[in-house]
Amino acid sequence: MPEFLTLLPPKESLDKLLRNLPVPKLATETIKTASALGRIIATDLLAPHALPEFPRSTVDGFAVKAADTFGASDSLPAYLNLIGECPMGAIPDLEIKPATTAIIHTGGMLPEGADAVVMLEYTQTVGTEIEILRAVADGENVIKIGEDVAQGTLIKPKGSAIRPAEVGGLMALGFVDVEVVKAPKIGIVSSGDEVVPPEKRPQPGQVRDINSYTLSTLVEKYGGESVIYGIVVDSMDAMKKAISHALGECEMVLITAGSSASARDMTAAAIDELGDPGVLVHGVNTRPGKPTILGVCDGKAVIGLPGNPVSALVNGYVFVAPLIRRLLGQSMDELRPSLSAKLTVNLSSQAGREDWIPIRLTTENTESAEKSYLAEPIFGKSNLIFTLVSADGLLKIPADATGLSAGEMVEVMLV
Amino acid sequence: MPEFLTLLPPKESLDKLLRNLPVPKLATETIKTASALGRIIATDLLAPHALPEFPRSTVDGFAVKAADTFGASDSLPAYLNLIGECPMGAIPDLEIKPATTAIIHTGGMLPEGADAVVMLEYTQTVGTEIEILRAVADGENVIKIGEDVAQGTLIKPKGSAIRPAEVGGLMALGFVDVEVVKAPKIGIVSSGDEVVPPEKRPQPGQVRDINSYTLSTLVEKYGGESVIYGIVVDSMDAMKKAISHALGECEMVLITAGSSASARDMTAAAIDELGDPGVLVHGVNTRPGKPTILGVCDGKAVIGLPGNPVSALVNGYVFVAPLIRRLLGQSMDELRPSLSAKLTVNLSSQAGREDWIPIRLTTENTESAEKSYLAEPIFGKSNLIFTLVSADGLLKIPADATGLSAGEMVEVMLV
Repeated sequence: MPEFLTLLPPKESLDKLLRNLPVPKLATETIKTASALGRIIATDLLAPHALPEFPRSTVDGFAVKAADTFGASDSLPAYLNLIGECPMGAIPDLEIKPATTAIIHTGGMLPEGADAVVMLEYTQTVGTEIEILRAVADGENVIKIGEDVAQGTLIKPKGSAIRPAEVGGLMALGFVDVEVVKAPKIGIVSSGDEVVPPEKRPQPGQVRDINSYTLSTLVEKYGGESVIYGIVVDSMDAMKKAISHALGECEMVLITAGSSASARDMTAAAIDELGDPGVLVHGVNTRPGKPTILGVCDGKAVIGLPGNPVSALVNGYVFVAPLIRRLLGQSMDELRPSLSAKLTVNLSSQAGREDWIPIRLTTENTESAEKSYLAEPIFGKSNLIFTLVSADGLLKIPADATGLSAGEMVEVMLV
Repeated sequence: MPEFLTLLPPKESLDKLLRNLPVPKLATETIKTASALGRIIATDLLAPHALPEFPRSTVDGFAVKAADTFGASDSLPAYLNLIGECPMGAIPDLEIKPATTAIIHTGGMLPEGADAVVMLEYTQTVGTEIEILRAVADGENVIKIGEDVAQGTLIKPKGSAIRPAEVGGLMALGFVDVEVVKAPKIGIVSSGDEVVPPEKRPQPGQVRDINSYTLSTLVEKYGGESVIYGIVVDSMDAMKKAISHALGECEMVLITAGSSASARDMTAAAIDELGDPGVLVHGVNTRPGKPTILGVCDGKAVIGLPGNPVSALVNGYVFVAPLIRRLLGQSMDELRPSLSAKLTVNLSSQAGREDWIPIRLTTENTESAEKSYLAEPIFGKSNLIFTLVSADGLLKIPADATGLSAGEMVEVMLV
C-alpha cells in the first residue's frame, strides 16, 4: 500500500486528536485592562450601564426642537431665540422651549426640551437671533441614550482577544480591570544526539537547537507560556522521564524528535507508554511535516514534531497554534492574517497532500495608487531554516488541489 | 471653496509630515534572542559561519559515491559493501571508497568519500551487502556546507521584526543575544472638560477617557512605549504645559483633542507655539478622521487626533502606526494583516475622500473545503466605539473610488 494512503490529512488528524481531548478547564486572573493587549476575556461581559448615559451632540451647532426647523431653508430660514450655551461635562442649566435654541459643542449633553442639533454651518447668528438654514429631523446629530451600547448587552463574549478597540470599549464602561484566561503552560522537549544548546559552538557533526526556540516563540505569540525542558539524549528512558516531567507541569507537551526514523519511533513509543490513549496519529499527509505525531496522554495533548526545523515550525502553525487557542478558550478558527498576492510561477502538488510553501512578497508596479503584491515561492530543500527567515509568509496548496497556476491570486498567510 | 478641496489626502498629509521630520536616531539595547519576539533588529546581521558547517544527510539511508549507483534499478541493482554506520553528532570514523557504503541517519554528517545518500526505501540489505535499487546524483539527499546560509551572508537586515523563524535562524548561528531597537516613547495627552478617568463614575454630561487607552494599546501593539499624561482641561495654558512636558520626555506626542471645534483649534495653536515648523496639516480628507492635525515641533511629530474615539483609533492605525515603525527603524510600509472577503452590500463614497468602514467577517457556506469570508459593514454613527469593538477589521475605500460593489472581493485589514 503506498505510504500516502496511510497518512491522515491535517484536518482529520486534528479532529481525531480533539475527539480524545477533554474540554479544557480555564484558569483565570484579573489584570489591568490598560495592559491587557492580546489577552483573552474569561467571562461574558455585559454592559453595566447604557453608553452614552445621556443624549450627546455629534456636531458643533445649536440644540433645537426639530419641529421648530421644519421647512427651514437658505431662502426661508427659521428664526430661534438664543437662550445660552450648553457647558461641556455638565448638565445644561437651561431648557429649550418652542422657538428657542442654545449653543452646543460636539460631545455636549443635550439640554432639556431639545431633540436635535443643527450644524453650525447651516446657521447664521444675528445678535441673539439664530437663523436656521436647514431643517433637522428628530434625533438628527444626536447620539441617543444607549445608542452605542444598551445596558445589559453582551459587549464581548468570553474567548475574545483584547485589541485596542476592546480596551476602549471596556474603559468606556468602567472596566478598568478585566478577568482574562491565564497563559497555558506548554512544555517543549527537544531530542537528538547531534543537537547542542545554541550557546555552545557545535563540533563537526553537531548542530544547535533551533526547535526549542522557534516553538517557544510561537507559543508566546499565541498567548501560551513556554517551558523549555532542554535537549534529551536519544534513549527511551531519558525521553520518557523528560516527557513525564513536562506532562506533570504543563497543559500540553511538544516534542521535537531527533530527526532520524528511529528517534521518531522512540517518541511514539514513549507517548504510548506515558498515558491513554497514547499515539492517535502517526504521520500526516502534509509537506513539510509528514512525520508529525499527535497523541493524548491522560487528557493532555502531546505533539511529536519533526526534527527538521522548517517542518517543526510550519506544523507548529498548523497544529500547535489552534491547540493553544483552544487552551485559552478561544475559537480554534483563527482569522489568519494574510495578504492577497499574485503567484509568480506554477506550483505543482500531489493530490491528497497539503503543501505549505514559503513565500516572499514583493510589491507589484501598477498604475493604481493601491499596492498589489506578488507571491514568489522560495525554493530550496525543505529543511533549511533560512527559507523561512527570508519568507514573509506561507502559502497553502490545499489537499484537493494538484497545484496552483502562475498569475492566480492566492492568500499568503503572514507568519 | 468647498471644504473638501482644502483637505489633504492621507498619503500627501503623511508625506508632508515626513519631509519635516529628521531621520530618527535609534537607541538600542541587547536582549536575549529567546525573548525577542516582535522586537526590531538594530544592526545588519551577517552569518559568522556557514550553515551547515558539514555536509548532512536529509534522509535515512546509505552514504555512497554517486558514481557507484549510476544505472542502478530494481532489475539491475548496484551492490555495495557495508562498512559501518555514521554516528549522530560526531565525525564518522570511516571512509567511503568505491563500491562501499555506510548507514546514515537524517541529519547525520556525511563520511569522507561520500557525495550522496540513497534513501532506505530504495535499498535492500543482504548481510553486509547493500543492493542499491535506484541511482542518485552527486549531492542528492545531502545539504551541502553553506547551503542553508553561507558565511558572511546578510542573514537579516536591520529594521527587520523578529518572528519565530528569525529566532530559529539566530539560534542556529549562535546569536543567543541580539541588539534590538529600544521602544520609542510615545506621549499621549488627552483633553476635554467632559472627559473623566475611566475609574471614575461619570456624572451627567461627562464621559470616560477612552482615547488615552485605545492609543496606548495601539502604541504597545506597534512596539512603542506609551506614556499617558492624563486629561488636560480645555485651556491654552494647561494644554501647552502638558504637550511641552510630553515633548521633553517622548519621541512623538499624540493629543486627543476635546471634541469641539474650539478645543481642536486650541490644539493647533498650542502645536504652533511649541516648536517649529508647528502645524503642517490641519484636516485630512478621510472619514472618520477629518479633523486630524499633523505637526512637527523641533524635530518631533505631534499628532492631534479627533476626540471621537472611533476616529482617534482609526487614524491611529493610518498615521500613528507608520510613524512608530519609522521610530523603530522599520520600513513604514507594513505588510498589513488582512483577509480577502466578499463584500455583502454596495458601499458609496465621496470621490477624493478615503473612507474606513468597520467590517464584521463571517464564514461563507461553500462546497469547498477551504474557508471563504463575507465582509459585512457595521453601520452606525461614526463615533460609537462599539462599532469597532464588534468589528473584525477595517475596509478602506480608496480616495480614487466612488464606492465598492456588493459581491466584490475586498481586502479587510485585521485590527
